[in-house]
Amino acid sequence: MNPKELIRDIPDFPKPGIIFKDIAPLLGNAKALRQVVDELAEKFSGCGATKILAAEARGFIFGTALAYRMGVGFVPVRKPGKLPYKTIDVTYDLEYGTDTLCMHEDALTKNDKALVIDDLLATGGTVGGMLELIAKTGAEVVGIGFVVELDFLHGRDKLTGHRVESLIHF
Amino acid sequence: MNPKELIRDIPDFPKPGIIFKDIAPLLGNAKALRQVVDELAEKFSGCGATKILAAEARGFIFGTALAYRMGVGFVPVRKPGKLPYKTIDVTYDLEYGTDTLCMHEDALTKNDKALVIDDLLATGGTVGGMLELIAKTGAEVVGIGFVVELDFLHGRDKLTGHRVESLIHF
Repeated sequence: MNPKELIRDIPDFPKPGIIFKDIAPLLGNAKALRQVVDELAEKFSGCGATKILAAEARGFIFGTALAYRMGVGFVPVRKPGKLPYKTIDVTYDLEYGTDTLCMHEDALTKNDKALVIDDLLATGGTVGGMLELIAKTGAEVVGIGFVVELDFLHGRDKLTGHRVESLIHF
Repeated sequence: MNPKELIRDIPDFPKPGIIFKDIAPLLGNAKALRQVVDELAEKFSGCGATKILAAEARGFIFGTALAYRMGVGFVPVRKPGKLPYKTIDVTYDLEYGTDTLCMHEDALTKNDKALVIDDLLATGGTVGGMLELIAKTGAEVVGIGFVVELDFLHGRDKLTGHRVESLIHF
């Protein structure tokens, strides 16, 4: 079973000229889903994470499965207006415009060790925003994990100083 | 460990007069997260599910963790414009207005047995929409599971004819 073979190219999504990597066939395959979650867990075995953070919506897909597998808590990072309790927010630059991410203010303490998970590393904007959020809490980042990394976009260059692991490269 | 004690009330969210049940403290507690996923898996042990369906964003939280735990595939149900491949869609009525849910057209076949998972059963609108989506594929619904059920909203009445399981009741 090679999970990479279950990722399909969707041309011109979400806009013309972009080739989207669709992980839906991988998710739908029980063995492949289990394999990628187990491989991420092995990569970060012993990292000491106390919480896994993931951003909506696609980040939730692997974030909680991995939290379950590794036996750590899960912290959802969401768009503005979605989290019901008091939040800390960060606004970060995109190619055109800005985006904002929010986290409950009591989700992390300075004693937490955070593992950041997302399905795909492209330019690294979302994860960069998450790192800013975590920095505001004083928690330590012990790793950043992706199922898929688009090497040609060099998003990893924005994450220097951190341990970054990806399972599948394009 | 009683996971129910980790769910907190947030008054007037998302609008005045609503008391929102916030599951974030439960998610952040590794033991409680594991317990609820294991309990859902036990409830549906032997149900024969081949796919777990969950709707963005909060449905993804328990949906994939349970898919991992039960060893079945995961199918994301999303808002319009989010899924990259060809979709089948359903528009359903809300108290004021309508909402639309989408699923990849190749996500389920008529031979699949679908287990529908969401974090919370309120009025049942979202899950009702998901049942309509599944009906279009010919797949069988083998169960519907929630972590939390708000009994006083009687959402269960919209799901008659199906096996419905909830872990925590308010």
